[in-house]
Formats: sequence, C-alpha cells, structure tokens
Amino acid sequence: MNGSEAMVRTLLQHEISVCFANPGTSEMHFVSALDRLPRMRCVLGLFEGVVTGAADGYFRMAQRPAATLLHLGPGLGNGLANLHNAKRARSGIVNIIGQHAHDHIANDAPLTSDIEGIARPMSNWVRTCASAATAPTDVADAVAVAANPEPGIASLILPADVAWGDSPEQDLARRAQRPLPRPADDIVERIAELLLSGRYPPESTALLLGGRAMRGEAPRLAGQIAARTGCRLLAETKNARSERGAGRVNIPQIPYPIGPALDTLKDIRYLVLVDARAPVAFFAYPETPRLLTHPECRIDTLACPAEDVTSALVALNDAVKGSANEIAHLSPAARSAHGGNGASDDTPTSLSLGHALAGLLPEHAIIVDEAITTGRQLQSACASAAPHDWLEITGGAIGYGLPCAVGAATACPDRKVVAIIGDGSAMYTVQSLWTMAREGLDITVVICANRKYQILRGELAAMGGPPPAANAERMLSIDQPALDWVQIAGGHGVPATRVSSASGFAHALGRALATPGPHLIEVLL
Amino acid sequence: MNGSEAMVRTLLQHEISVCFANPGTSEMHFVSALDRLPRMRCVLGLFEGVVTGAADGYFRMAQRPAATLLHLGPGLGNGLANLHNAKRARSGIVNIIGQHAHDHIANDAPLTSDIEGIARPMSNWVRTCASAATAPTDVADAVAVAANPEPGIASLILPADVAWGDSPEQDLARRAQRPLPRPADDIVERIAELLLSGRYPPESTALLLGGRAMRGEAPRLAGQIAARTGCRLLAETKNARSERGAGRVNIPQIPYPIGPALDTLKDIRYLVLVDARAPVAFFAYPETPRLLTHPECRIDTLACPAEDVTSALVALNDAVKGSANEIAHLSPAARSAHGGNGASDDTPTSLSLGHALAGLLPEHAIIVDEAITTGRQLQSACASAAPHDWLEITGGAIGYGLPCAVGAATACPDRKVVAIIGDGSAMYTVQSLWTMAREGLDITVVICANRKYQILRGELAAMGGPPPAANAERMLSIDQPALDWVQIAGGHGVPATRVSSASGFAHALGRALATPGPHLIEVLL
Repeated sequence: MNGSEAMVRTLLQHEISVCFANPGTSEMHFVSALDRLPRMRCVLGLFEGVVTGAADGYFRMAQRPAATLLHLGPGLGNGLANLHNAKRARSGIVNIIGQHAHDHIANDAPLTSDIEGIARPMSNWVRTCASAATAPTDVADAVAVAANPEPGIASLILPADVAWGDSPEQDLARRAQRPLPRPADDIVERIAELLLSGRYPPESTALLLGGRAMRGEAPRLAGQIAARTGCRLLAETKNARSERGAGRVNIPQIPYPIGPALDTLKDIRYLVLVDARAPVAFFAYPETPRLLTHPECRIDTLACPAEDVTSALVALNDAVKGSANEIAHLSPAARSAHGGNGASDDTPTSLSLGHALAGLLPEHAIIVDEAITTGRQLQSACASAAPHDWLEITGGAIGYGLPCAVGAATACPDRKVVAIIGDGSAMYTVQSLWTMAREGLDITVVICANRKYQILRGELAAMGGPPPAANAERMLSIDQPALDWVQIAGGHGVPATRVSSASGFAHALGRALATPGPHLIEVLL
Repeated sequence: MNGSEAMVRTLLQHEISVCFANPGTSEMHFVSALDRLPRMRCVLGLFEGVVTGAADGYFRMAQRPAATLLHLGPGLGNGLANLHNAKRARSGIVNIIGQHAHDHIANDAPLTSDIEGIARPMSNWVRTCASAATAPTDVADAVAVAANPEPGIASLILPADVAWGDSPEQDLARRAQRPLPRPADDIVERIAELLLSGRYPPESTALLLGGRAMRGEAPRLAGQIAARTGCRLLAETKNARSERGAGRVNIPQIPYPIGPALDTLKDIRYLVLVDARAPVAFFAYPETPRLLTHPECRIDTLACPAEDVTSALVALNDAVKGSANEIAHLSPAARSAHGGNGASDDTPTSLSLGHALAGLLPEHAIIVDEAITTGRQLQSACASAAPHDWLEITGGAIGYGLPCAVGAATACPDRKVVAIIGDGSAMYTVQSLWTMAREGLDITVVICANRKYQILRGELAAMGGPPPAANAERMLSIDQPALDWVQIAGGHGVPATRVSSASGFAHALGRALATPGPHLIEVLL
C-alpha cells in the first residue's frame, strides 16, 4: 500500500473516523486512499475555515479528534482562525496538510510556502512526514497529541512523495494515555481552610470554573461547595462547552465588556481557579486595568488543565463538607413552559429571543453561540430550558459558529443543534451552510441581523470620541446593501425564513425545531 | 495627535489613499483616525480574504500599494491565502495588523497569537511598532518595501498602545527609490549572438516572458525579436497582468497541465528568461520531471525582476536588429465582431464563452480569470478582442478572483471589470459580492458552474487509478445540493441571471456589460 493508505488505516485504528476536508491536487493520492477505506467519513467544506471549525465542534461534542485534510500553505492559512479557536477550546485535531514532493519544494513552484511556519502559531505540534514508511508512526504521534487527556492541535504535513510512496503494512496500537492526576491534598486542604476560615467574608470569595469544570459532575460539585461555604460561583467569559439548563447548576459567566467584567470581580478577594485561568481583559484600554481581579485578590489554583478537575472538586467538596441537599445556582428540574417573551412588546431582543429559545429547546439540544452583542442575555434566559450544551467562541476569532455547528451535528446526529449567529460573524464562514445541506445536518441556524458590527460601535463609543463619521460608518455598518439571508441560505441549499418580531421568531423556531435537517431563520433586529 | 492618526497621515503623504479593511476592537483608534482623515478611502470586506485579495488587484492595476487593516492574528490568517497570491504577483501591499497593547500581550488574552509568526511566511517585511512616536517612520519603512520598484508585502503590526499613544506631528517625505538597472551589455550581446548564431535552430529557441514583460512596450519588443530571429515566444503559466487583445502581441502561455506543458517545451534547447523564472511543474507527479525544460536546454536570463525589463528588450532588439515592421504574434488592430460561437452547437464551452467574450468586451476591459478548467481557451479566444488586461492566479491559492476584481475596479473606476470564476473557486471568497454591491463597482461576474472540482477530477484520473468511488466523489463534486448563484448573488445585493447556452451567455453578457455596476451571470456547464 502507499503512504496515504497506511496513514488513513492508522487514523482508523486510532478511532479517528471523520475527516473534514478541502483537498487539492497534492492530496489526490490521499483522496484515493480514502476511497479504499470507506469507513472514514469524509465531509467536504467549500472553504477551509469550515473544515477546521467543524473539527473543533466535532471534538467539543465527541471528545475525540477528527482529521482535517487541507491543501498546502494557503489552505492551512484559510483554516488558521478556527484552529486558533480550537486551540483555545483545547480541542484535539489531527490536521493533514498537503505539501509538494520533497524533491520539488526547492523548485519554489507557485504554491510553495513555509507550511511549518504557517502551522506553528496555531498548533501544539508540527511535523513534516519524512517518508512513506514512517508516515503511520507520524500519524500515531499526531493522534497522541490530539487524543491526549490534555488535547492539542497536531499538524502533520504530508509531502506528495510520501503520499504516493510505498509503505509496508503495519498495525500501530493506540498508545495508553496516562490519566490526569488529581491535585495534591495539601492544596485542597488549604483552599478549604481559606474558604471556611472567615479570613475572607464568604461573599468576597469565588470559584472560577472553566474548561472541563463546566461539564459532568463538576458544576454540581461546585454548587455544593458554594452552598456550603457561601462563596460565589463564576464561569469564564467564553467556554468551549457548558452543560446547562433545567436540573443543572447554571453558573453565571464573567461578562465580556470590560466595565461589567471589572464590576463582577471588584469585591472578590479570594479567587479559586477550577480549570480556569486568572481572568484578564479581552482587550486592553488606555484607562482600565489589564487584569480583571482586584489588586489585593488572592488567587489559588484548585485544578489546572493538566489535572483531574472532577476529583479535585470531589476532594474540595469533601473537605468543606458540602451536601447534595444544598446546591447553589441549581435550576429547577421542571423546565418552564413559556414560548414567547410574555411581554406586550413584540420586539425581538436578546431577552425575548432567549425566552423563546428557553421555551422551545428540545431535550439535549446543542447551542452554538456566536451572537456577540445580541447573545448577551440568551444564556441566562435558557437556565430554565431543557438540559442542553452551550458552545462558545473560545478564541474570539469571528466565524467559528456555523462551522462549529457542522462539527457538533456530525458528532451528535441524534441531537438538535441551534446555531445563533450574528450576521457579521456568519459571513466569515457562510459556506458552512452548504455543508449543512449536503450532509443533511439537523441544525437550526438563527441569524441575528442587526446589520452592523454592533460590538465595534460599542467599543468606538467607549473610547469617548466623537460619534462615527463617514469612514467609520462605512466600516461599522453592513446595511448598504442589506444582506438577504433567505436568499443566501437558499443559494446554499438551506431553506430559510425571515422574521421581525419576537412572536414571529418563536413561531419560526418551533417549526424549524420540529423539522429535521438544516433551516435558517433571519431575525431582523 | 495619536499614533493612529500619525500613521494614516504618513500613508496619505506617501500616496496610499485606499484602505481595504476588516477591523476589530483593537483597531478602533485607527478607525477613528480614518474618520479624521477622510481622504483615505475605506473599503470594507466582510472577510479578510476579500481585503487582501482586493489590495492585490488594486496594486496590479494602479501600480501603487493600498493599505489593508486586519484584526490580530486570526484576521491576518484569513487574509494569508490572498497575500500568498499577491506576493507571487509581486504586488506591493502595506498591511496594518492590530495587536494587543504591549503590556497586555503576555497576559495571553483569548485573541493573543504569534502575529509576526503568522505574517512572516507571506510577507517580505514584518515589523511590530515599538511606540507611537516612531510609528510614522515604521509606516514609511513599510511603504518603502511596498512601493519599491521591486515591490513586496509589508506587514506592520500595530499594538493598541501605539494606536492610542501620543505621537508628535512629523512630515516624512517619500523616499526616492533607485530605478531598476538595465542588464549588462555583455549579457545582452551573448543572448543576441546565441539567438542569431545558428548554434540552435531558431524553432528550438524561445523567449519566456513574465512579470513586467507582459505589459507596456515589452511584448511588442519581444514580438520584434521573435520575428527577426525566429525564436518562439512563450509566457509564464500564470501572470499578474498581461496586456492583450487586438493590435497587441498576444503571447501564448505555457499550459498549466503537466503533459501539455512538457510538450510545449520539449523541443526548446535555448530559453531566454525575460522577467520570468525557469519553468517548473505546478505540482510534482511520480513519473514526470520537476523541471519543464529539456535536460539539455540552456537557460539564460535577459532580465530578472530586479532589472529594467523594457530597457533589456530594447537592447536585445537593437542587438538583433529587430524592426517594428515585423512583429510575431501581433493581432490585427481591428477587433473581430462575432458575438457568439458561430457554431450550430449552442453548448457553453471554454471556446464558445471565449468567443462571446471576445466579441463583446469593451475597450480596456480588465479580465480577472479564475475559471480554472473552463478558462483554458478563454485567453487565446480573446486575442482578437478589444485591447484589455488579463489578470491571473499567480500563487495558485484558490479564492483570488472575486477579491482581485474588487481591487481592480477600485483602482480603475472607468474601466469594465469582467471576473470569470469557477464555481468552486468563487465560494472561497464569496463575500466579495457584497463589497461589489456596497461600492457600486463596475464588475460583471461570470460564474462557470460545472458543479465540481473539475481540475481535481482530472488530476485523480491522471493518477491512473480507479474512477472516484464514494469518498472521492463526495470530495470532488459540489452538485448535492447545487449552489444557486442567482440567489447567492441576490443575497449579497448583486443582481444576477442564469444561462445554460452559449447564445444565452452572449445575450446576458452583452446586457451586463451595457449596465454599470455589479452583475453576476451563472453559466451552467
């Protein structure tokens, strides 16, 4: 067999069975190998940002890596922004990136570029395959990075001569991965003591959760600790995947805007990080601090990303004697039944959209949230909704949402995905709509069409200068011409509706959720 | 004034008056400065690939750089593929890339990445501004790279504290640039002697033109030399900008596919490079050579990119005693009048589309060609068309065409731009359509809708393996669902028509060319 076939076999042996792809000429031997190993599911994206973003969404939900297939340096370049988001989400991905044959690289053909250089900033591991014989080992090494308990982005560069060269049949067993350690007892004891000692008033203490602490048993354990010690619970501003909704602990997030973020943390004097990082400003401003915590706030780490967060919370809960009978931020198990905003005003707003969503979400829906300004009240409104997963833009690189929904729906074909995306954001990777149609993915896309980069208008206003004049207006508004999302979706093969009221949204959402396959709702705000 | 305003002032002082932009939060001070200096024309792209591709197209036609404004590492990443094409086109561009404030970078906020590392592979020059006071000098240095007689991609990274910090008013004069030298006399003489000596039969000698040799006086001089010496004339496979059409020397290009490319060059034993590079295969294949010339072919360089190509050709023409009365490959000045393919078969093909184009192109139209497989006969068919410029995908990074058209139309508002793009290619940077509508650009977009990646089907077939099975089919066809370009264009604010015959195309093209502003024609192939 050739190097390509040996690599695909190794991927399958390592339980990587989905390949999001946008191949080119240099990858044709790999494509042909995929034909001979049809167990690999190939999902085409018409742009590489779709491919890498889908691999991110897939990992977040499947908790195992997908492969991507990308064409040389420019194809990888197109995928970088969503690899950035994936890296920040700590998603594992195995990128296979085509390269010229070894003996052709120095000829500097038109598509030649420094692929390792392009890969490095957004990868945790980069390697160029040296030969077809060793390519399967390279794949196994890449999977060891991507499927690690501390997963990362592995970028494996595949020269064409490796892709077509002979490779002996070899079966590489999946390597045993060391489980994550639990934190040392003395750290847990010290934190318990500080939370209970009274040295800090309880309302000035908080657990800050992120990463894996937003899922599984962790939020409930945190809720018990908070109920017992009186500490506050906070979540990081953007999380890869949070389990939320009725019957669950719904932890409020540190707001994105710098003012409210500082307000949230200003009285905290003891902050315990639970798979979270000490909070910093998303952006720096001339007159505001870079670190969001008060200068006198003590910060301890209960569990870092390289540690077992659930064990850590179990230990802390035991140490403070938390009880399952008393849990902070626990939403009632019975979901609320409202399907509209209940107000006489029928304007679609963050809150009214959130209420409609809360009332209509089916059990175990997956929300992909890139609604930016419009989305700010969606999450809290959905605390009473049926249990669901909430996925966010971890790296802040716009254009993550639609591709992430593709990946999440590929990973979870039995769950409804609702992607709530700002119109500005949706345009970056609009080609995702076609993959949704091609694969028949069960995704309801909600486009929040305010026809501007509202977040930037807010930032510009916050600078305190004059209101936007001609040049700024042309860079912050996207209303001339207005994007017609019903036509854009239809052009990509996705049926679509436009609504301009909260009740209209609730009606359209109910219909879309009741129908399998992709649908798009454009909400005029 | 602040650093941003000082930088925009310096750009304007250096005759950079167009900024293709997709800004974010870290660039808001720069956006505000653009408001205070309204002479800078700001053109928004809804995706960064539009922005960088437009800057490339702008340079190709204006022969001076535009600025781009990009948001941090991910925004730059989105623009890399078209920077790659621009670098290969030797277009000058000044990228302004936002960065966190210096004192915030180490805090590793979500949008932090190695921006210099991302910029380096596709830039000729990279610098991070150290302070607001020195930022104008940084801009002048960047312009010196981009507006050089040997232009390049200058990437200037702008930390937010530089953008908002105080900068003293300073006027930086545009630096004098040394003109390109002409080649040494002895080189010209040696080439003349070899062309005339009879040592190589004339039909085994050729001039290979590229870069600047495809414009101005150069092609005509080459035509004189060829007529006098009997050498062949060839052009590189993809050229940034060729002046073609009636009354001009229309030089045939080395074909893209490896077989015809080798055939074209197999009998050449003496090749003279005129601002061109020794031809290499676009891609390597197991059984074909990497270098396209015969192993015994002697290759001399008349003029490299760092030399004055017109002077070089004048000198060679003088040396061989070429005459303006005898010019090879010269098309008659009277354009042909055919508007259809003249054949009874009304199927739209590369040739019939080319004939329609040739008959209908207005004087001085700009053709942006990314039609890939469908486009292969367009150029030769247009040798009899009214004089026009022909722009191609120099770096092979798909998605160059629509943005390039945006830039060309911005540079040349009085000229009609016709962008002929494969449907697969057009999807990579489809957001360009909105900028065309927003700016009212006079562009006719022709989408060649074969609903597949035809070039890859050809490459797969050339491998000699079995025909594509399920996986390959799913990666090489884009017909399930079919993209509806009329809806896609309408959604972006561009009126559109669909045609499925050669005569229908000629009719639609005639109408679109007669109407100002953007129009799209989807041709079903």
